[in-house]
Amino acid sequence: MRAFNVTEENASLFVDLYELTMAAAYWSNHVNGIATFELYFRRLPPNRSFILAAGLEQMLEYLCNLHFTGQQVDWLQKHKAFESVDSGFFDYLRDFRFSCDVWAVPEGTPIFPLEPMVQVRGPLIEAQIVETYLLSMLSMQSMIATKAARIAHAAKGRSVVDFGSRRAHGPQAGLLAARASYIGGCIGTSNVLAGELGEIPIYGTAAHSFTMAFGSELEAFQSYNRVFPANTTLLIDTYDVEKAAHKVKEVPNVNAVRIDSGNLFDLSKKVREILDHDQLQKVQIMVSGDLNEFKIAELAQQDAPIDSFGVGTELVTSYDAPGISVVYKMVTATIAGQETSTVKTSEGKLSYPQRKQIYRFRKNGQFSRDEICEFDESPSERGEPLLQQYLQAGRCIQEMPKLSEVRRYASMQLDSLSDSMRKISAVEAYPVTLSQKLQSELARMQKRNL
Amino acid sequence: MRAFNVTEENASLFVDLYELTMAAAYWSNHVNGIATFELYFRRLPPNRSFILAAGLEQMLEYLCNLHFTGQQVDWLQKHKAFESVDSGFFDYLRDFRFSCDVWAVPEGTPIFPLEPMVQVRGPLIEAQIVETYLLSMLSMQSMIATKAARIAHAAKGRSVVDFGSRRAHGPQAGLLAARASYIGGCIGTSNVLAGELGEIPIYGTAAHSFTMAFGSELEAFQSYNRVFPANTTLLIDTYDVEKAAHKVKEVPNVNAVRIDSGNLFDLSKKVREILDHDQLQKVQIMVSGDLNEFKIAELAQQDAPIDSFGVGTELVTSYDAPGISVVYKMVTATIAGQETSTVKTSEGKLSYPQRKQIYRFRKNGQFSRDEICEFDESPSERGEPLLQQYLQAGRCIQEMPKLSEVRRYASMQLDSLSDSMRKISAVEAYPVTLSQKLQSELARMQKRNL
Repeated sequence: MRAFNVTEENASLFVDLYELTMAAAYWSNHVNGIATFELYFRRLPPNRSFILAAGLEQMLEYLCNLHFTGQQVDWLQKHKAFESVDSGFFDYLRDFRFSCDVWAVPEGTPIFPLEPMVQVRGPLIEAQIVETYLLSMLSMQSMIATKAARIAHAAKGRSVVDFGSRRAHGPQAGLLAARASYIGGCIGTSNVLAGELGEIPIYGTAAHSFTMAFGSELEAFQSYNRVFPANTTLLIDTYDVEKAAHKVKEVPNVNAVRIDSGNLFDLSKKVREILDHDQLQKVQIMVSGDLNEFKIAELAQQDAPIDSFGVGTELVTSYDAPGISVVYKMVTATIAGQETSTVKTSEGKLSYPQRKQIYRFRKNGQFSRDEICEFDESPSERGEPLLQQYLQAGRCIQEMPKLSEVRRYASMQLDSLSDSMRKISAVEAYPVTLSQKLQSELARMQKRNL
Repeated sequence: MRAFNVTEENASLFVDLYELTMAAAYWSNHVNGIATFELYFRRLPPNRSFILAAGLEQMLEYLCNLHFTGQQVDWLQKHKAFESVDSGFFDYLRDFRFSCDVWAVPEGTPIFPLEPMVQVRGPLIEAQIVETYLLSMLSMQSMIATKAARIAHAAKGRSVVDFGSRRAHGPQAGLLAARASYIGGCIGTSNVLAGELGEIPIYGTAAHSFTMAFGSELEAFQSYNRVFPANTTLLIDTYDVEKAAHKVKEVPNVNAVRIDSGNLFDLSKKVREILDHDQLQKVQIMVSGDLNEFKIAELAQQDAPIDSFGVGTELVTSYDAPGISVVYKMVTATIAGQETSTVKTSEGKLSYPQRKQIYRFRKNGQFSRDEICEFDESPSERGEPLLQQYLQAGRCIQEMPKLSEVRRYASMQLDSLSDSMRKISAVEAYPVTLSQKLQSELARMQKRNL
């Protein structure tokens, strides 16, 4: 059996076939001048006022490592799809390195529709070939970071832990979701690999099977506690929650109990009463089980005696919005020796020409509006440019922040959004305008006849 | 930067922390007798009458390769979460190999709620530790294979190609989705890596950017065609679909055109007329753009002149049901030296005791009903046992079929479902019964007081 996985070594083939056939056609037609591509999303998913940018670090890893092995090029060259292609193209692939400039919005920055989250500028073939990988990596992490921000906000200061690896779209998705959830506001994850690779705090309790593997529930509780005397969270809903809650006093030094089923409001209240009655005020209550931002907001609203939430499926799949309308569009190309803006005028899928910069403005410390300008244009007033350069001619020119720093930055950024922007249901549109220059350019381009 | 990815080497740490803390507690308490875990889903997602099992091969790869490196064990041993654990446990991890028996339903088999799709039987710690990986790998691929089966069915004989890598939940999810989509009925994928690793047919056209990179649309078409004279699909909606359709006659030997926006019914009719008028009856029409099984069924119903569909986001995210209620539950354990059935009685989350086998019965060639029995029990009549053994004491005892064979098998299996079971909206429940023996055992177990 051959491992069916995307690795550092084979990521170059994680492309849609058309990226390689277009590359062959560009190469054969000597069309490989400077072009600019921008990655952005067209619309916000339901109930969201922003998207939290995430996934940049993995994108840069991929770009800096991008190459084709001899074996990969041989395979392509022998493939029927490429039988008519000149062998010189395959020599080009053998020597392929990514040499573009890459600008991006820092991870943890809230962004809005049409704002370029990433900008790739360089030889057309190189800029085109990375499309699929960039879209999948950035859209997924941004989607999950956004969902995490919503859930953490709904929890009103209570902790949220990512418990979703098992329901993610495969192992890598689980790992990436742990990372994105942490950026978005979770305090950590149950995923051990995410802890090892990303220094993300890891959390765990016990499963129902643990309780079931012993002769009695109490024996299971005590057996766990003997091995983890300083760090025991008891799962108390394998059989009967209230009966289990009464057993907590027989286990020394329990940190917390977890309830994973039933009416979490009623049960948490009953359990809190039992624990308090047994002088176990220090024992915290964690709940889990098909939670999302709306259920958590309701529990918080009801002032349920819950200290933390474990969230799985809904978080790691962004269940109510498992895809976003993210695209990677060419905005300039070199045509007849001159770099010129480009546009697509397909019905309902207009693209916006020209290389851009986003400027963000604040009022009383909070984000008040954004202006999308041409790259070298001055904004209407002094604002913060959001796109920063990360790669110059394919080389990394910025030290990447630690994940804990990204999380801290994201938290400050989210705090700069107005309260109404952070609501989990009613959606308010953040004001984003296109500069007059960009609008004129778009109008001019739409009038052409090609 | 350190690669943030799940690989063969680090997959052992793709666990929820509790699997390892439970392992430590089991080991320290000398609780590691034979146990059986079963993986199944509790409920069907909306509009589905079945789930198509997929992901088995990647599960087996993982299990056969499972081990901890010295560096990983050192990291765990130093982690705060394990500071109270006896060093003998870490020696156990250093020597860890997976030695369980594994039974599973073959990939491409339709399954129903509560039916064990996978059964793992062996030492408790080993059977427990693989939970997260198995759940994420099998649920994801099964979910996507199911969605693909729905979409391919809706297309009524027209071809469906997976175009979704860019919208999948990260690169690995895109790769796995390509595989699962192929099993479910797609004719192939745009993902080149899936073609290279899985011998899945790959398909591609061109992007809008290709058209935009040339001085005119016709120049772009001709430039592509020069390089791929025997295999040209033209994307005709970059500017104006009808104008572009009129240009097809100026490009020799075009296979197909693709329309990616607008009203696909109206546009495909207009384009077909233009092509036919130009004596281009052989040029096929492919459409794409936010398609799903319902939109495709409508286009097929209207008899739109469409030859194939490219489907992305909705397919690879299983957009309307991006998660399934899949669980991995212990059904037997060795308690006080004896293997005994186990059950969880949490509110709304009941588990079913005992190691099981599924029997499927046919009537006039079609699947008529299933019976879930105890493993060694005889079913009420002669039926086909669905669970087959794949691993014996951790070693693979079956040659895995080629992916094209899995796809053929899946197609025959889907054909054995009644028409009403294959509908994409109205849902009919397939009859699945629990044997009398299993029901009695469940009733007995629920009465216990633990």
